[in-house]
Amino acid sequence: MARVVVDVMLKPEILDPQGQAVLGALPRLGFTGFTSVRQGKRFELEVEGEVTDEVLAQVREAASTLLSNPVIEDVVGVSVESAEAESQVTA
Amino acid sequence: MARVVVDVMLKPEILDPQGQAVLGALPRLGFTGFTSVRQGKRFELEVEGEVTDEVLAQVREAASTLLSNPVIEDVVGVSVESAEAESQVTA
Repeated sequence: MARVVVDVMLKPEILDPQGQAVLGALPRLGFTGFTSVRQGKRFELEVEGEVTDEVLAQVREAASTLLSNPVIEDVVGVSVESAEAESQVTA
Repeated sequence: MARVVVDVMLKPEILDPQGQAVLGALPRLGFTGFTSVRQGKRFELEVEGEVTDEVLAQVREAASTLLSNPVIEDVVGVSVESAEAESQVTA
């Protein structure tokens, strides 16, 4: 089993109220030095067997049709995660 | 200006209805071979100047207090993105 990660963000020109809310909250909680915050979506897709080029092509296609709205969002990353990285939760 | 990316996912034991909805839709759109889909959040934080250890420590702290709900979510990644990667939108 392997995992493919798809990252989707709002297009830069689209207003991001959630990101702005976080940006506004950061100084109130004592976190300084941040100039902008944008929030997007991260998908983890598990596939049977290995991630072949054909599987990656399917993921890219699904990313641009189902996982994102091409009018307001960009798919900013499609990456294959190995098994070790899966169990590693870095905080 | 530099960018730090924070990835937050639901804990594995938490039900993910959005992910299940996507998993259900994939075969209907002709995408096969996917065994699970989980949806989480991706934050892009821009910081003034370089990303020092102190800035990274602030981001990790903000990630576990403001950007995620530690009861149901895990911070699965905190990474620094260089300027070139920023302009590169891979689809």
